[in-house]
Amino acid sequence: MTAQVSAFETSEYVHRIAKTRVAMLDAGLDAIFVTDPSNQAWLTGYDGWSFYVHQGVILMQEGEPIWWGRHMDMMGGRRTCWMQHENILGYGDHFVQSTAIHPMQDLAVHLKRLGLDRARIGVEMENYYYSAKAHAVLTEELPDAKLIDATALVNWQRIVKSEAEIGFIRKAARISEKVIRTAIERAAPGVRKNDLVADIMHAGISGVEGDWGDYPAIVPLTPSGLDATAAHLTWDGTPMREGEATFFELSGCYRRYHAPLCRTVFLGTPPDEMLRAAEAQMEGIDAGLVAARAGNRTCDIANAFMSVLAKHGIERSGRMGYSVGLSYPPDWGERTASIRSEDETVLEAGMVFHFMPALWMDSWGLETTETILIQDDGPAMPLCNIERELFVKS
Amino acid sequence: MTAQVSAFETSEYVHRIAKTRVAMLDAGLDAIFVTDPSNQAWLTGYDGWSFYVHQGVILMQEGEPIWWGRHMDMMGGRRTCWMQHENILGYGDHFVQSTAIHPMQDLAVHLKRLGLDRARIGVEMENYYYSAKAHAVLTEELPDAKLIDATALVNWQRIVKSEAEIGFIRKAARISEKVIRTAIERAAPGVRKNDLVADIMHAGISGVEGDWGDYPAIVPLTPSGLDATAAHLTWDGTPMREGEATFFELSGCYRRYHAPLCRTVFLGTPPDEMLRAAEAQMEGIDAGLVAARAGNRTCDIANAFMSVLAKHGIERSGRMGYSVGLSYPPDWGERTASIRSEDETVLEAGMVFHFMPALWMDSWGLETTETILIQDDGPAMPLCNIERELFVKS
Repeated sequence: MTAQVSAFETSEYVHRIAKTRVAMLDAGLDAIFVTDPSNQAWLTGYDGWSFYVHQGVILMQEGEPIWWGRHMDMMGGRRTCWMQHENILGYGDHFVQSTAIHPMQDLAVHLKRLGLDRARIGVEMENYYYSAKAHAVLTEELPDAKLIDATALVNWQRIVKSEAEIGFIRKAARISEKVIRTAIERAAPGVRKNDLVADIMHAGISGVEGDWGDYPAIVPLTPSGLDATAAHLTWDGTPMREGEATFFELSGCYRRYHAPLCRTVFLGTPPDEMLRAAEAQMEGIDAGLVAARAGNRTCDIANAFMSVLAKHGIERSGRMGYSVGLSYPPDWGERTASIRSEDETVLEAGMVFHFMPALWMDSWGLETTETILIQDDGPAMPLCNIERELFVKS
Repeated sequence: MTAQVSAFETSEYVHRIAKTRVAMLDAGLDAIFVTDPSNQAWLTGYDGWSFYVHQGVILMQEGEPIWWGRHMDMMGGRRTCWMQHENILGYGDHFVQSTAIHPMQDLAVHLKRLGLDRARIGVEMENYYYSAKAHAVLTEELPDAKLIDATALVNWQRIVKSEAEIGFIRKAARISEKVIRTAIERAAPGVRKNDLVADIMHAGISGVEGDWGDYPAIVPLTPSGLDATAAHLTWDGTPMREGEATFFELSGCYRRYHAPLCRTVFLGTPPDEMLRAAEAQMEGIDAGLVAARAGNRTCDIANAFMSVLAKHGIERSGRMGYSVGLSYPPDWGERTASIRSEDETVLEAGMVFHFMPALWMDSWGLETTETILIQDDGPAMPLCNIERELFVKS
């Protein structure tokens, strides 16, 4: 968060809102109520760890967006949003985790006051921060309104990044390089995994020169050996061991913008099978980067990677990347386009993806990934600059 | 996470499940589908940062619980759950963030296979990880079943902690002391806030002696000066300044168990008003601890605190604490009993609360809190041992 200053110029927020309003018109929506914290931040600048209670942004075709949340978080709204204070609304503490009343009852009063009692209102049906109960209560409180699924409507406006946003992601990428270097340098037999993660966290949050580090939306994923066959284990206090691969799935974060980056470190002499897979993975990534050009589709990236892997006798299907940028826990993905064979999103300059064709095998895992920027011409540009290889420390 | 070993003895999980089944019978439920990651972990041991996709635990009156999630997370399930591998189920990657199909369609197939197509099934309507869309799809896929709100049904079984759980919370408390001491010692004019937070994170994750630190469910909240009038701002790169109070809302975490602890540091000479408020706050906390005894109610704690504050001419209403223990982001609260005047939960030995009667005033904030254990006799026991005062560094 930045005290009393939103992360971007007000003109940038105005532009974002104008884009969003076009999408609202196309979807036939009079208003949207946005609960995704990333969408809230993107539209208003709001930044605080308060999304564990109900809060959101109301956007209509006219006027400033309205941030609505818990009364005690209005102060945070006033200090981080670009709008006038009258457009920061709060509900009383007695609504919080009550079983008798629900914050959506308070929201409904505001929506009615705004003339939206018979409106078509978009809500984010598939979001962590819009619960099944919230939807049930809002539906009941607004019997004459129509609540329409607008999941990802705002997210899709975010997929092509502005110059200012790319600047933030580049700063995050510098921090990503620092944390991955820290992991590679410190990994050694006998080092407790949590001590290594402590160093990784310290490196990320201290940041790079004047650019302070923010918290990434996902904590370090750092499993070793057999644990690395599982994609989402975090860490424990076990010392690292000779003969094991550890993958580091990490991201620097600059003002909520991410540039995820993964590398794998092997302590000792890797088995031939792993070395061959690593070679195939690197060749596949090269092919993916070439396919990741404006005018191509996201599936072209996945298919290019899979073709190379197939040539090497490795089958890899499923999702191997996603759009990234502004994010809050529990996910640093933007939840729009995925890099996978069934996704046909057309690539445009200014899109940013985490291209992550990880290999999770029966007895080990190998993650080597890049955050890539789609350019007007030519292959995608990896935003981090770390050798793309299986790091072997013997 | 702990490789191949659940955090507790299987007998403890069996006991938890027996308690939960009684609550299910009382609520007239044939089965529950639990999406809260803390509830999943409490019943099965599952631990991984995979809750950003749909997953959950099915519990019926017979048999082991069944963990269900993304196919690639089955490996994590096998390595952290205590159940047999046949009770770890996975859905394909093509369901992830698809707009055409939804993971709840896969879940419905399993529920039908288990004979639950006409059953009364409890779901957690008010939870981050059970979206409005998930509920809509599950309702549609199970037209003959009855989906009943079972929000917090499992959470309430967690409110009285076992000896083993209290042992984990005590370990977390040692880590909390370390992180708060780090904050107090390192706070000084000119220190960038993010550098201080980097040290705090490092202290927490490196842990205390053999006890490794896990990630707390909330990142450090460390606002200074006017920012501290807002409850939930995180940090930025601004150097700390003479003449400002900073509150540190932190928690150690040991295997997902928390012991939150807050202290406030003033750099320079605090205004008289703040010193008087701090004195009132400490006296109020003492009164709250005395009221926090088995047989009393949670509201008695709040009322005891408020009476003292009122005597000092300070009005403080609202929520001032909550049950804590096992948690995942975005909240370290257990989401059961709150310490507030309208909550009449009867206190029992073995309950653990974060008693947090913070004061957020017009131009500053003052957080001094304790994680407390309710005992058979006498006042509650604070689990951390840090001087209870406004720390002044001049």
